[in-house]
Amino acid sequence: MRRTYTCNELTLKNIGEDVVLNGWVHSKRDHGSLIFIDLRDRYGLTQIVFNPETNKNIYMQAKELRSEYVLEIHGKVETRPQESLNNAIKTGEIEVEVKDLIVLNKSKTTPFEISEDNEIKEELRLTYRYLDLRKKKLQNNFILRSKVNQITRNFLYNNDFLEIETPILMKSTPEGARDFLVPSRNHPGKFYALPQSPQTYKQLLMIAGFDQYFQIVKCFRDEDLRKDRQPEFTQIDIEMSFVEVDDVIDMASKLICEIFEKSIGYKIKLPIEEISYKEAFERFGNDKPDLRIPFEIVTLNELFKNSEFMVFKETIKNKGSIAGIKIKGGVSFTRKKIDLMIEDAKNKGAKGLAYLKFKDGNFETGISKFLSSDEKDSLKRKFELDDGDLLLLVADSYNVVYPILGEIRLEIANELNLINENEYNFLWVVDFPLLEFSEEENRFVARHHPFTQPKLYSENIFDESPENIIAKAYDLVLNGNEIAGGSIRIHQKKLQERMFEILKISKKEAEQKFGFLLNALQYGAPPHGGIAFGLDRLIMLLTKAKSIRDVIAFPKTNSAYSLMEGAPSYVVDNQINDLHLKLKNI
Amino acid sequence: MRRTYTCNELTLKNIGEDVVLNGWVHSKRDHGSLIFIDLRDRYGLTQIVFNPETNKNIYMQAKELRSEYVLEIHGKVETRPQESLNNAIKTGEIEVEVKDLIVLNKSKTTPFEISEDNEIKEELRLTYRYLDLRKKKLQNNFILRSKVNQITRNFLYNNDFLEIETPILMKSTPEGARDFLVPSRNHPGKFYALPQSPQTYKQLLMIAGFDQYFQIVKCFRDEDLRKDRQPEFTQIDIEMSFVEVDDVIDMASKLICEIFEKSIGYKIKLPIEEISYKEAFERFGNDKPDLRIPFEIVTLNELFKNSEFMVFKETIKNKGSIAGIKIKGGVSFTRKKIDLMIEDAKNKGAKGLAYLKFKDGNFETGISKFLSSDEKDSLKRKFELDDGDLLLLVADSYNVVYPILGEIRLEIANELNLINENEYNFLWVVDFPLLEFSEEENRFVARHHPFTQPKLYSENIFDESPENIIAKAYDLVLNGNEIAGGSIRIHQKKLQERMFEILKISKKEAEQKFGFLLNALQYGAPPHGGIAFGLDRLIMLLTKAKSIRDVIAFPKTNSAYSLMEGAPSYVVDNQINDLHLKLKNI
Repeated sequence: MRRTYTCNELTLKNIGEDVVLNGWVHSKRDHGSLIFIDLRDRYGLTQIVFNPETNKNIYMQAKELRSEYVLEIHGKVETRPQESLNNAIKTGEIEVEVKDLIVLNKSKTTPFEISEDNEIKEELRLTYRYLDLRKKKLQNNFILRSKVNQITRNFLYNNDFLEIETPILMKSTPEGARDFLVPSRNHPGKFYALPQSPQTYKQLLMIAGFDQYFQIVKCFRDEDLRKDRQPEFTQIDIEMSFVEVDDVIDMASKLICEIFEKSIGYKIKLPIEEISYKEAFERFGNDKPDLRIPFEIVTLNELFKNSEFMVFKETIKNKGSIAGIKIKGGVSFTRKKIDLMIEDAKNKGAKGLAYLKFKDGNFETGISKFLSSDEKDSLKRKFELDDGDLLLLVADSYNVVYPILGEIRLEIANELNLINENEYNFLWVVDFPLLEFSEEENRFVARHHPFTQPKLYSENIFDESPENIIAKAYDLVLNGNEIAGGSIRIHQKKLQERMFEILKISKKEAEQKFGFLLNALQYGAPPHGGIAFGLDRLIMLLTKAKSIRDVIAFPKTNSAYSLMEGAPSYVVDNQINDLHLKLKNI
Repeated sequence: MRRTYTCNELTLKNIGEDVVLNGWVHSKRDHGSLIFIDLRDRYGLTQIVFNPETNKNIYMQAKELRSEYVLEIHGKVETRPQESLNNAIKTGEIEVEVKDLIVLNKSKTTPFEISEDNEIKEELRLTYRYLDLRKKKLQNNFILRSKVNQITRNFLYNNDFLEIETPILMKSTPEGARDFLVPSRNHPGKFYALPQSPQTYKQLLMIAGFDQYFQIVKCFRDEDLRKDRQPEFTQIDIEMSFVEVDDVIDMASKLICEIFEKSIGYKIKLPIEEISYKEAFERFGNDKPDLRIPFEIVTLNELFKNSEFMVFKETIKNKGSIAGIKIKGGVSFTRKKIDLMIEDAKNKGAKGLAYLKFKDGNFETGISKFLSSDEKDSLKRKFELDDGDLLLLVADSYNVVYPILGEIRLEIANELNLINENEYNFLWVVDFPLLEFSEEENRFVARHHPFTQPKLYSENIFDESPENIIAKAYDLVLNGNEIAGGSIRIHQKKLQERMFEILKISKKEAEQKFGFLLNALQYGAPPHGGIAFGLDRLIMLLTKAKSIRDVIAFPKTNSAYSLMEGAPSYVVDNQINDLHLKLKNI
């Protein structure tokens, strides 16, 4: 028979009703005279009772029931006795007295309990993923993820975006990360690649005139995995025609607003603040600042422009940077702790880390003896110093000073618990550099990707200091995490060719890899741009999950291995042979 | 500046308004005194007018405009002159007099015109896919596809299904079709496979207690392609716990009902008829009957049980089948045509094809002289013969007679245009055989897949005539196409092991390939079942597209090649090397 209710439905309204329930034995309490079982399904729990006086036979069967058995029960809804009311759950005022019991399936003893509060090795959890996923907390992550998907698609669809599927078997055009390859059986020696993103396809959809596109889509990167990276990940992928930076930012802001409000009831105040890459770098030391941390980096070049302190003097002379951060109450840091921080700063590439303790209205220790009283006064004012504050200063080249202070800022904030975990802080970072020089490859590489449009375009834009070119690129940052990134794309063939040139992609290579795109740009490509949200990361932040693996149903380990089914695995020689391949001696 | 309207919005209500439009030059008519352009975007067309008296300069620029140029125009909405009203389009009563023109991008002459009625070689269309996709008809296919996706997900989500993503990089467990393989860089000599379906994952989600799952998901098969097959295809994938055949059929019927009503306004009458596989086979010769064809196969064993005609007599004796179809007005078939049909039937494996013409109340030619008048009378009544009808009869073994008559039925129906193309005929085929014997592999293979539950289970079910076991499997058929298929799955470890055994999958192989599933079945697996819709096929039928490639944005050819970007392609040796592989000498 079919269940008539799930395990999260019955209330006092159902008293006296005959019902059928399905579920798992979540817990069992044998009180001798009565047996109580919490029957569990995805929706909730319902207490069922076996009473020997009502039905001795079924009561005896219930004695044999064990955790995770799957049951079908028939019974009558009764009021719970006063002393066992449970307001924490929806069905907490009722129980079902069982009149008929069918064991749909048994369960061996599970390798770990299906409860929230056990600390189990992740390897075991991943091996028995189907059991791990029975935990309420994990289930809730996927219930929320499913909800976010619907909210996202409905919002975009209702705003005239079309969902269009792009191929998974595509052409290998690695630029940056490594492609996963798929050998072709029909075309010996040739390979497909799995998409790192549907970038070129979505641009072609704009050229085809689809105007507004979206897709929640799997992407793939064969990278050496870091924490919280997966070989396959999911993007909310979006592209729009006839737009500029502001249009995409506006649309994406509304989307994230909708997601947060409808999924967890959190209202984001629009518009979301925008700051330039340069400002983010100089105030927070990176391009994804966490604004929940209540202090930031302060540039001190102006303040120390006449400093007699040799280190600062030299720095000013060499057009370097001097900057610092204030740690409230930091004077309590021990000498040992400060020495460790100095050591750490040096390991990170700084020549040193200067400090100043502010106590009883005066600067103490550190470099205070090298500073003039004017400089001290200025510092006091600039940092609004209070008794007990500690200043940490770095003087070095521009590209060294800020990232180091940025890292120290994050570390201190975590150490001193300065971050409000209940706050969601959003920020747009805009005006990224178009290019950055890769020492390793001895060439400029695209900071975003080679299809990004420069902010101001002229014929000779690339002739001098390409590193200074600003891109029409933007990132959405949430609590120090990049959750979305995008750009306005190049829609002019000539500019795209120039871009490949500056990246030292030869004409031949450009033609071979991206000829189809260059071709398409000749036939009436509209101005267009877009954005992609990292969905896994976003869900992780929404659910406050500790790991990205807690929001992916069947994740891989850091070595891209699936412990549950054992993938990748060896295959039979025939399969390899049919692909015109041989294994190398390994 | 941003557009203020799309090209399908302006009506008489907007007269006098200053507007900004973006779009492509769809067509241009230079009347000397005035230039008219139909400006096109995804939404529609708007007529824009360049008048030298209003602005000579812009009029001169307009002279240079060519097809597929991308424009931004500023202008004022005016009423169209009476003689150029166009009721066929929404904007047909207005035109926009252009006051400012910006050419956003130019276009070379396209290799084919962006119009509906040109017959272009598909190769050219696929090479310039981004131009082909500009055609209204194709665009409409994708607009409908996007809509169907939303209808589907909203229906399922609102019915408590969770959308959960399953991995694309999975374990290779080929059974039936060939897997696409992905070599692992981190695990030398090992491979991932792309999923042929998320079958095992969705079962594990049920074991994890997610209760109801869905996903619109890409699947992959490395097959030698036939017409209307693609190496990657999309499924609406569904799984439910605590259900039986009727529950899945009921839910899937409601889903398809919702899709047809909300996407194209077609109401399907529920419940959808169900017939057994056996009945489908004997009445229509296959498992996906097209009921729009107004005649079916009639079994004549009873009628001819005492026949003196040697062929029939022998057939009855050998427990074969005699069956026939009636073709209304078929007496007009020429002798030559009938000879061709006989030849064709023989090529299809029949020993022959008998025929009878019914004319002026009498049987003529063919085998009429071998039949008794009783038999003739019975035939008349059985087929309700009218003057001019033709009977085609086959006598042979059971497995030969019906498929051949089924094929002839389809051919004749197409030839004589007997199919109402505006009708959507739905049908559930149920009670499929669980197994079929593969002569090639000399073993039983699963007709659906090895996880399908038999209808009646007993310990010794597999001991005698496995070919007679009925499965809890069901297909949804639309106009002779299987559009969905599913089954109730095995949730008992023992039965699953017995199933692998009967399929001659050794214990070791079963453990190696499916050990994780067998394991999972021990820990409280609920009864469960599901279904998957072939989305590409479904959209093709909804849009009446001629090819599956017309509903896939970037399809591959029959040799699994993408003509647009050239995929698969050669990759650099390094890439292959890193995967611990060598190309074989090809």
